[in-house]
Amino acid sequence: MKKNRLEAFTDALIPIIMTVLVLELGMPKSYSWQGLWDLRRELFAYAISFFLLAIVWGNHHHMFQVVKQIDGMVIWANSILVFWLSFIPFATKIVNDDPDSLFGSQLYTIIFILMNLSWNFLRISLVRANKNSPVLVKALKREPKSIYTLAAFVIVFFVSFAWHQFGMIGTFIVMMLWIVPYQRVEKSLKNL
Amino acid sequence: MKKNRLEAFTDALIPIIMTVLVLELGMPKSYSWQGLWDLRRELFAYAISFFLLAIVWGNHHHMFQVVKQIDGMVIWANSILVFWLSFIPFATKIVNDDPDSLFGSQLYTIIFILMNLSWNFLRISLVRANKNSPVLVKALKREPKSIYTLAAFVIVFFVSFAWHQFGMIGTFIVMMLWIVPYQRVEKSLKNL
Amino acid sequence: MKKNRLEAFTDALIPIIMTVLVLELGMPKSYSWQGLWDLRRELFAYAISFFLLAIVWGNHHHMFQVVKQIDGMVIWANSILVFWLSFIPFATKIVNDDPDSLFGSQLYTIIFILMNLSWNFLRISLVRANKNSPVLVKALKREPKSIYTLAAFVIVFFVSFAWHQFGMIGTFIVMMLWIVPYQRVEKSLKNL
Amino acid sequence: MKKNRLEAFTDALIPIIMTVLVLELGMPKSYSWQGLWDLRRELFAYAISFFLLAIVWGNHHHMFQVVKQIDGMVIWANSILVFWLSFIPFATKIVNDDPDSLFGSQLYTIIFILMNLSWNFLRISLVRANKNSPVLVKALKREPKSIYTLAAFVIVFFVSFAWHQFGMIGTFIVMMLWIVPYQRVEKSLKNL
Repeated sequence: MKKNRLEAFTDALIPIIMTVLVLELGMPKSYSWQGLWDLRRELFAYAISFFLLAIVWGNHHHMFQVVKQIDGMVIWANSILVFWLSFIPFATKIVNDDPDSLFGSQLYTIIFILMNLSWNFLRISLVRANKNSPVLVKALKREPKSIYTLAAFVIVFFVSFAWHQFGMIGTFIVMMLWIVPYQRVEKSLKNL
Repeated sequence: MKKNRLEAFTDALIPIIMTVLVLELGMPKSYSWQGLWDLRRELFAYAISFFLLAIVWGNHHHMFQVVKQIDGMVIWANSILVFWLSFIPFATKIVNDDPDSLFGSQLYTIIFILMNLSWNFLRISLVRANKNSPVLVKALKREPKSIYTLAAFVIVFFVSFAWHQFGMIGTFIVMMLWIVPYQRVEKSLKNL
Repeated sequence: MKKNRLEAFTDALIPIIMTVLVLELGMPKSYSWQGLWDLRRELFAYAISFFLLAIVWGNHHHMFQVVKQIDGMVIWANSILVFWLSFIPFATKIVNDDPDSLFGSQLYTIIFILMNLSWNFLRISLVRANKNSPVLVKALKREPKSIYTLAAFVIVFFVSFAWHQFGMIGTFIVMMLWIVPYQRVEKSLKNL
Repeated sequence: MKKNRLEAFTDALIPIIMTVLVLELGMPKSYSWQGLWDLRRELFAYAISFFLLAIVWGNHHHMFQVVKQIDGMVIWANSILVFWLSFIPFATKIVNDDPDSLFGSQLYTIIFILMNLSWNFLRISLVRANKNSPVLVKALKREPKSIYTLAAFVIVFFVSFAWHQFGMIGTFIVMMLWIVPYQRVEKSLKNL
């Protein structure tokens, strides 16, 4: 089965989640530069969540460049991935409403842990559906970065017990590992 | 006429309906694990509605893999299908606001009955528009699973008179029949 | 220039406008079949606006089947068309909030008059950009139905002075002319 | 890497931002032509923001017509561009709520300055990723219009100190330079 509709589905869903973030962005209390400055935390959280979604999309884009075909399991793995992504506006709002709570901070990290696990499920489903494509198998079968990322998220989770605000910032720092989307795929495509 | 824009239209509409669900998700009353736990019913209903929409999309995706061309009637059948899907957030909200009401539970089931009928109308329109494609005719002309599903939804509807909360859960159980998207289509494509 | 991105843009925008309609749909006052029945006007208006947008999309889809290329003027004509479409949720809400007002009823009709004018501007831009395509020129150059439709909308506008509620229903009746999307295009494509 | 998903992502995100504008459009206080007239400022601001987004999309569309391939840096440049675009509803709302404030007016202009800078970053990334395409390099390497635009936005910013309301209108006037999307690209494509 062709991959184009799964890509189109994801290319609609991730922008919509980004835009839900905008809808939940509060307005400044006073319409002045001071009012905008007072909103700095919220704007910062908005920017972090927006670019985290952009990072996920960029890596999804790169991963699917080598995909030849998909099956029912890939569709399910992708649906579970976007399910966790859909909670990012929810967690962002909690972090914004109560910036000092341990709960919001850890919830944010947990969503990224669940997203990371779904990402690996998607990666494994893609390898399974494209056994005959050596480029994909080589690029996606072993992916140490995903494992390091999972470990790093768990560390962020435990560090946030000591330092509340670290959940969101730590998650963003870990995701920096993915800011250059999937070099392994770019390399595989160049070697073709 | 080509099918690609009808797919694109559906691939935008279903993710947007999924996201309307997120917009209607309430916030926890207290920002704590306890608060999240108190929201468990609502989160559960969100997850059910989200994955039901994912199941419909997955089957729509599989069904259209064998489609060669569409006509005006297919566009209408598809519009009616998404019309009923667009009521899922509405029904989910009613179930959440008043979890013990028979009304919400049955409304949820009725939307899936109407969706099932539209699905069959779409299936028949596709057979009509693709008479010359033996693969599609073979895969879609007779579809006993759709009939069983309709019967099962009607049973769920009547059982919910006795057990209020069964509407949403029963609907989800019936939809499990569709969790592996359209094996008939996957088989037809492999036989090519 | 290729047409695919203009189609993708429109295939995202129209579903989003449809979904804004859902967001503005009120909840029943009592969660019962009686409560749903009390909402019948609003649900009816929702259905009319939803299917009017579906009719516009279906005709847009058919019209673009014969398009070979686009230019800057087509992009502008299309942007103006979707601009008027974006007011449908606004007008629907006014009709729902105050069903007996002449204003809401006429506003609804005026939006469709403006939409009809933009449709013709789009049609003319397409003819201009595809002079070398005899199929498109034949199908779109002379379009008496658009002129009849405009005249009919103007009649609806004036009738609504006498009968307030006619604006929305009359608009829907006129749009019935378009329920079978663009037969002229279907015919042209078959003659190829 | 192919460009089609980056286009699809942008073709979903810009319409969604346009629609967030609709969601934030207030309702008239009285449902009458007078009430609509009282909303004229807000409707005018809505139209300006809607068509500014349409201008950006039209130029994005034209620019990408000559693009052969993209890389990770292009994805980042595009994400930053849409990030600034996502603030247009926010700034539009501030201008509407407090039309006489210098702050809202200047914020609007600043967003377009940031958007202009991101546009140039995107343009440079595209040149870098398509070094081997002489058509693209010729069309996009030197782009004096972008520099004039930046200078004009800075002038609008300073003029608005003297004339508060000029921010939004001046921004629109400057964007008129872009109303005919990228003639340089249209010319390059014709010379092929």
